[in-house]
Amino acid sequence: MGGMTRPDWAGRIDKTWRALDTPVCAFVITTPNNLYYLCGFDGSQGYLVLTPTDRWLLVDGRYRFAAEAAVADGTLGPVSVVGIGSGFDKAFAELLDRLPPGNVAFEAEKVTVASHLEWQHRMPTRTFHPTLGLVERIRQIKDAVELSIMRRGCRQLSDVARHLREWVREGRTEREVGADIQYALLRAGFARPSFPPIVASGPNSALPHARPTDRQIRNGELVVLDFGGLLDGYCGDLTRMAAVGQVQANALALVNAVRAAQDAALATVRAGTLASDVDKAARAVLEERQLGEAFLHATGHGLGLDLHEAPRIGRADDSGRAVRLEAGMVITIEPGAYVAGLGGARWEDDVVVTEQGCEVLTDAPRDLLVV
Amino acid sequence: MGGMTRPDWAGRIDKTWRALDTPVCAFVITTPNNLYYLCGFDGSQGYLVLTPTDRWLLVDGRYRFAAEAAVADGTLGPVSVVGIGSGFDKAFAELLDRLPPGNVAFEAEKVTVASHLEWQHRMPTRTFHPTLGLVERIRQIKDAVELSIMRRGCRQLSDVARHLREWVREGRTEREVGADIQYALLRAGFARPSFPPIVASGPNSALPHARPTDRQIRNGELVVLDFGGLLDGYCGDLTRMAAVGQVQANALALVNAVRAAQDAALATVRAGTLASDVDKAARAVLEERQLGEAFLHATGHGLGLDLHEAPRIGRADDSGRAVRLEAGMVITIEPGAYVAGLGGARWEDDVVVTEQGCEVLTDAPRDLLVV
Repeated sequence: MGGMTRPDWAGRIDKTWRALDTPVCAFVITTPNNLYYLCGFDGSQGYLVLTPTDRWLLVDGRYRFAAEAAVADGTLGPVSVVGIGSGFDKAFAELLDRLPPGNVAFEAEKVTVASHLEWQHRMPTRTFHPTLGLVERIRQIKDAVELSIMRRGCRQLSDVARHLREWVREGRTEREVGADIQYALLRAGFARPSFPPIVASGPNSALPHARPTDRQIRNGELVVLDFGGLLDGYCGDLTRMAAVGQVQANALALVNAVRAAQDAALATVRAGTLASDVDKAARAVLEERQLGEAFLHATGHGLGLDLHEAPRIGRADDSGRAVRLEAGMVITIEPGAYVAGLGGARWEDDVVVTEQGCEVLTDAPRDLLVV
Repeated sequence: MGGMTRPDWAGRIDKTWRALDTPVCAFVITTPNNLYYLCGFDGSQGYLVLTPTDRWLLVDGRYRFAAEAAVADGTLGPVSVVGIGSGFDKAFAELLDRLPPGNVAFEAEKVTVASHLEWQHRMPTRTFHPTLGLVERIRQIKDAVELSIMRRGCRQLSDVARHLREWVREGRTEREVGADIQYALLRAGFARPSFPPIVASGPNSALPHARPTDRQIRNGELVVLDFGGLLDGYCGDLTRMAAVGQVQANALALVNAVRAAQDAALATVRAGTLASDVDKAARAVLEERQLGEAFLHATGHGLGLDLHEAPRIGRADDSGRAVRLEAGMVITIEPGAYVAGLGGARWEDDVVVTEQGCEVLTDAPRDLLVV
C-alpha cells in the first residue's frame, strides 16, 4: 500500500462479523477481493477464517513466508498466518477441528459444489451456512483509505486519457490503439488494465461490448474508447469518444444526446436517491430524442475492488429491489446509444456519492476528441 | 478462428457425452473454457446443455444475436442458441422442464453452492450429479486444430522473445520491461498476455512468483523473464534469463545448472513416460549440484485454453496419482532454482508430447541474454 495510511482491517472484520444473520462459530471467506478487503492479502487463493476470538489466514507455500513477514510489519491485517500442507480443504478441516461445535458460515457465491462436498465429507458433524453478498454489501460504501486510492487512480487514468488524441488516427487499427492505451496504463503505474480496453470504430462502435479488431479506423467514423486501470487493487473505468475527420451531423447528434443523458444522470446523483431514478434521468433524455431503444444497458454500476460491483444503476424492474444511493458509494455513470448503420456513443465517468450530490473522480476533459 | 480449419466440435461433444459415468438426461457445462472447447463460444458466461439428441447454448442479451449469426455461418458449433430472459438459472429450469425425468450432470468444480441451491429450489424433482474434471481430461490431448493454433502462438511468442535484449538494461525498472513485453505481445497480435509478465531482477529473481516492481535493474544481476500470450483462446508460456553486465561465477553456474536440468527433463519426455519421471530427471540434475532444496516448484504443467491445466509434471507424491504422458499433450518444462542472496533462474519451453519424444513449440534461442 506504499506509504498510505493502513486500512482499518479490524473495523472491516467487525462489520463483517456483525452482518451475519445467524449464530455461527466461524465464518470462512474465500473470495479473493474480500480477503484483500478484510486483511490486505492479495494472493490468488486463501481462506480467511474468522471466529469470535481469532482470525486465521490459510495460505499455500507460495505465500506463507511473505504473508508472515507482512503481518509482522503491519502491511497485512491482524491475522494469524497458517501454511497449508497439502490442500486448503484438509487444512481448513484441521483448523475447524479445534473449534467448538456450531455452524460455519461461508460465501455461497464463491464456494463450488466440489469444495462443499469435500467439506461435508471431512467435517460430517458441521453445518455450513450459506451467505450471499455479505462482504460485498459492506464494500459498497468506501472508507477514507479506499477513496484516497480511487481518487488517485481515477486522476492517473484521466492523465492517460489526455493522450488519446495521439493514438486515434485514420488508418490505425483498433488493436494498435488498444495496445497504446494498455502500454500507457502500465507505464503510468497501474498494475494492469482493469479490463481489456475497448476501441470500437465505425460500425463496431454500435456494439456495446466490442473487442478491438484489426479493422482500420476511417475518416468520418466515431470511435468509442473505454478503458481502466487497477491501482492498489481498485478499478477505474472511463469512456471517451473520438470523431475522425468529417463525421456526419446525425452521428454528432448521437454523441451529444448521450452527453446530455450523462449530464442529466450526474445531476441526480446524491445520497438518498434511488439508483433507478438516476437511470431514469439518463433514459428520459435519450427517449426524448427517440434513442430510448438504442440505450442497451444500465446507466452504471458500483466500482471498487471489482470492476462491476453493487449497486447496479439500472431500471427499477431489473435491479431486483430498490437501491438507495448512500454517501461513499463509488459508481460509474455511463449511458450509451447504439444505432446500427450510424454508430454508437458512450460517455463514462466515475463518481463518489455525497450527501449533497457527487464528486467526479475522473477529471479528464469531456470534449469530443476531433482527430 | 480466422481462416482456420474448424474444430470438430461434434466429435468433442460426443467424447464428452461418452465420458459420463452415470446415466443422465442432460449434462450442463458452465466452465467458460469448456464451452469454448465444445462449441467455440467465447463469451464471459453461458450454459451449454447437452442431451442425447440436442445441444442448447444459453446466452444473455449481449451475445444472443452474434451467437445466432455465428452458428449460421459455422464459426460457432452445432448448437441451438437460446436467449435467456432474466437470469441463467430461470432459463435453465425452463429448458429442463421440457426434458424427460432423469439426473442432470454438472461441473462441480465450477458451479457454486448458490447456483446449486437455486437449481434445487427451481427443480425440486431433479437430481444433480456432480462431475469432476471431465471435459478437462479430454482437453489434455490436443487435436490437430489445437496444435496448429498452439504452434502458431508459440512461434509468435518466440518472436517477441527475440526482442528481449532491447528492453532489459541496467537502470530500467522491472515494471518498464514488463510494459514493453506486454506492448509487444499486443502488437504481435495476441488478444492479451496469458498472465501478467514476470520480470524479476537481482534479489527478486529468487522469488518464483515475483511481480514487476519499480526496482531498477542493476549491473551484475540476473533477470528472470516469464511471459506468454493468448492466441485464439490458447496460452503460450515462456521463460528466458538475462544477465546484466558482470555477473558473478556462481550465479552463472546456477543459470547453467537449471539449463542442464531443463535439458534432462526434455530428454525424458515421450508418450508412455510417467510425468513424475520427467520431474525426477530435472530434480536429479539440481540435486547433484546441491540445488535440490532450491527447486521450489514442479517441473511443469499442461498448457492449453488454461494457463495451468492437467497434467501436472511434478513429484510422484504430490500429483495425487501416477500420470503417464500421452501423445498430443502440450506441457511446459520449466525447472527453476532460487537461492536467497544469490538469485534465481528458470528456463521454460512449451512442448507437444509425441510417440518418439517431443516437439518443442517455443523456438526462441535458449542462450543466456548477456546485456
